[in-house]
Amino acid sequence: MAEEAAVRAQAEVVRRLKHDKADPDEIAKEVAKLLEMKAQLGGDEGKHKFVLKTPKGTRDYSPKQMAIRERVFNAIISCFKRHGAEVIDTPVFELKETLTGKYGEDSKLIYDLKDQGGELLSLRYDLTVPFARYLAMNKITNIKRYHIAKVYRRDNPAMTRGRYREFYQCDFDIAGQFDPMIPDAECLKIVHEILSDLQLGDFLIKVNDRRILDGMFAVCGVPDSKFRTICSSVDKLDKVPWEEVRGEMVGEKGLSPEAADHIGEYVQLHGGLELIERLLQDPKLSQNKLAKEGLGDMKLLFEYLTLFGITGKISFDLSLARGLDYYTGVIFEAVLLQQENEHVEEPVSVGSVAGGGRYDGLVGMFDPKGRKVPCVGVSIGIERIFSILEQRVEASEEKIRTTETQVLVASAQKKLLEERLKLIAELWDAGIKAEVLYKKNPKLLNQLQYCEDTGIPLVAIVGEQELKDGVVKLRVVATREEVNVRRESLVEEIRMRTS
Amino acid sequence: MAEEAAVRAQAEVVRRLKHDKADPDEIAKEVAKLLEMKAQLGGDEGKHKFVLKTPKGTRDYSPKQMAIRERVFNAIISCFKRHGAEVIDTPVFELKETLTGKYGEDSKLIYDLKDQGGELLSLRYDLTVPFARYLAMNKITNIKRYHIAKVYRRDNPAMTRGRYREFYQCDFDIAGQFDPMIPDAECLKIVHEILSDLQLGDFLIKVNDRRILDGMFAVCGVPDSKFRTICSSVDKLDKVPWEEVRGEMVGEKGLSPEAADHIGEYVQLHGGLELIERLLQDPKLSQNKLAKEGLGDMKLLFEYLTLFGITGKISFDLSLARGLDYYTGVIFEAVLLQQENEHVEEPVSVGSVAGGGRYDGLVGMFDPKGRKVPCVGVSIGIERIFSILEQRVEASEEKIRTTETQVLVASAQKKLLEERLKLIAELWDAGIKAEVLYKKNPKLLNQLQYCEDTGIPLVAIVGEQELKDGVVKLRVVATREEVNVRRESLVEEIRMRTS
Repeated sequence: MAEEAAVRAQAEVVRRLKHDKADPDEIAKEVAKLLEMKAQLGGDEGKHKFVLKTPKGTRDYSPKQMAIRERVFNAIISCFKRHGAEVIDTPVFELKETLTGKYGEDSKLIYDLKDQGGELLSLRYDLTVPFARYLAMNKITNIKRYHIAKVYRRDNPAMTRGRYREFYQCDFDIAGQFDPMIPDAECLKIVHEILSDLQLGDFLIKVNDRRILDGMFAVCGVPDSKFRTICSSVDKLDKVPWEEVRGEMVGEKGLSPEAADHIGEYVQLHGGLELIERLLQDPKLSQNKLAKEGLGDMKLLFEYLTLFGITGKISFDLSLARGLDYYTGVIFEAVLLQQENEHVEEPVSVGSVAGGGRYDGLVGMFDPKGRKVPCVGVSIGIERIFSILEQRVEASEEKIRTTETQVLVASAQKKLLEERLKLIAELWDAGIKAEVLYKKNPKLLNQLQYCEDTGIPLVAIVGEQELKDGVVKLRVVATREEVNVRRESLVEEIRMRTS
Repeated sequence: MAEEAAVRAQAEVVRRLKHDKADPDEIAKEVAKLLEMKAQLGGDEGKHKFVLKTPKGTRDYSPKQMAIRERVFNAIISCFKRHGAEVIDTPVFELKETLTGKYGEDSKLIYDLKDQGGELLSLRYDLTVPFARYLAMNKITNIKRYHIAKVYRRDNPAMTRGRYREFYQCDFDIAGQFDPMIPDAECLKIVHEILSDLQLGDFLIKVNDRRILDGMFAVCGVPDSKFRTICSSVDKLDKVPWEEVRGEMVGEKGLSPEAADHIGEYVQLHGGLELIERLLQDPKLSQNKLAKEGLGDMKLLFEYLTLFGITGKISFDLSLARGLDYYTGVIFEAVLLQQENEHVEEPVSVGSVAGGGRYDGLVGMFDPKGRKVPCVGVSIGIERIFSILEQRVEASEEKIRTTETQVLVASAQKKLLEERLKLIAELWDAGIKAEVLYKKNPKLLNQLQYCEDTGIPLVAIVGEQELKDGVVKLRVVATREEVNVRRESLVEEIRMRTS
């Protein structure tokens, strides 16, 4: 029976691959299902019944992917350090109760650990809540720190588009009581620097403020108790059209059609300083205390962003809501733009690569006396950036070296393993990056081929004559040039040629 | 009732702290228990009932600890790269079945994730099994790679001694079919280089071979079926005395007293080439095929280690067993030695900081056709190294900078926030690491104090006169020297002074 089902399912996948414009993620899912079925039935040999894969929504990084990943990390870490950030680290799991009540409707995506006796634990969902816990626990009221680590969400993965269940976040946050909007502006400057530096093409940073949203909900007639859930609906506007969001508000969440339509008018608005000025004059919004505060700060923010010279890529956008519960002020999200083709007037967004905002209440939730530490921060989501850069490397056929080896220690004749090992130990001890083939008597041709394959620029060749003369033959792989170098000068020579 | 119990428990802890020589780990455990009890009873305010802590056996890293951690990582990564390794990464969790049957008696320490629907997952226990899974999955038969990541064990933590439930492993492995003992010797060279480089004091690398152990068990009369469990007992010899291990073998594991005593004679032996030669002549061992093979390879290994010049710190030690099931050949473990005081003749071991060995069968356990890929590797356990270096930094009162900021942009008068922001944006865009205080009108004294506190070497001061003259006043914090620098030369000047 199970076998029959597997065969049928397989036929179905093949059919869809042939005839349909099937979503590659969908297909990948079905293939995974098939493989699982097959595994349950037992393999050909019947002895290795397990599935050889990484867990759903996760992946390994090959050396080539790691080389790209390190480039991205270096760009991001350089930027964080340029802005004077310290670095911290926290455990991959937290007490379950530490994460409870922080993520609103997304809480269902948290990975829990099995109760094996002892504390109940969950994998971290982001780096912000652990940061707030860290501040409260250590009574820190003032810090600028970055944290780069993996976070975990039991979401529906879409790996071809860079959406994973295990993914990196690169967070930069500023905690402390400061004059308004200066740290907030720095966070946006950081996003601007990183996205410019990585050369990912055009981008846009959308900005809004939770206080403006709440004021807007109030003047549109949303009851207080529905603010958060209506905010969650607005948050979907980057993925689904307004009509659908309106349907959810009215149908599922019981909002009046009038209130929804009123919201619908506001969330169309986006612009710059002139829009802020206009809304500050809006007869309804300007009467709402929260909205007025938010708009006043938004104006100040734009003044600082003007001084930083980055307003060209910033858009004040009333449809931006951000899903998480803990934001209290400015919120923002950076999207990459892609000019699909020349006939399209408006650039199309290909997805969010950074987001953040102000969360002045989160640390207080952990402090035994409820003492607040105002915070603002940004999180760079790099899986999508990896995907883009990986595709670009594939397309360009750029050859990426995955090691840094400077020299291969080789021999031209047999029975020279001992001499190769003696020489390479000398090089290692002098700090030279060196390799040797793990064969007693490798052919010279194979040794040279290894250098070609892996990009090693130099070969240090020992032979009987060289040993007698106290020299080593140094060969430049690219030019095939060979020179005899006195053994005591070899380290210096290699350093010079590879610096 | 619960309250009474908590009060009693607290009194007990205080008593022990006062009168007993209690183990600090024990005390920490009891304090944690107390805190949990207190949390269950509710805090003083009655509203924040959760415990503000990291999960048992885990810890945060502060910026200062991260600075030390990065030093250690840099030393280790430099060494791995010097030996031509690529780098990979794998997910923090694996399918549960991937880890099943790989760790012997230690399997009970694996963290499982809760079944929330979908696959059954476990946190990785080491980096070796994920590496073997990666090789089999990608059909890789030849790679030299390193992997630095956290692993998870539900062990009894002893944090003051650097034993955690979440801890880093730094693994270097060589996979592939090569001539005997060349990659094995390189792994030992790597341990030697890293421990020398980190200047942790004297160390010893113990070496043995699973084939020698198995041969020894055979000639001592241990039944085949008891090899692994008796091996686990021998593995405890670095922590408990022989009498206790013998008791476990005979009492719990049903070994004959004669066999145990016979083993007891062998496991006392340690030495170098001369011991290998002697055992090759041992009338019993030399008749055992496995032992003979192992001893032959051990001899070859020592020859290569002699060429590398590191035999001084290597000891062939028959008591070394290593707990894990998957080893098939050479095994080794590095321990730091500490001369407790001048009267003690033998240096005392303070614990293992690296271990590894050959595991030729592990990849084959994952390959659908059982194809083997021989592997040998080493794992550096750095938590204990961190502990030592942290204590050393504390003791030396060395001031560790936790940021790299080159210059603080400051102002001498009020109302110059805009000018500070304009200047700092120029510096950031030129790649200068710069900070500004997030205040509209900070006092110059506070700005200078900030530099003193955080070790920022330069201050770029804007004032009304400087703005008029098109200059910036550059102050050297250490010497209080001040010079006016033309604004267009400022970046160059800062680079020069901080290079």
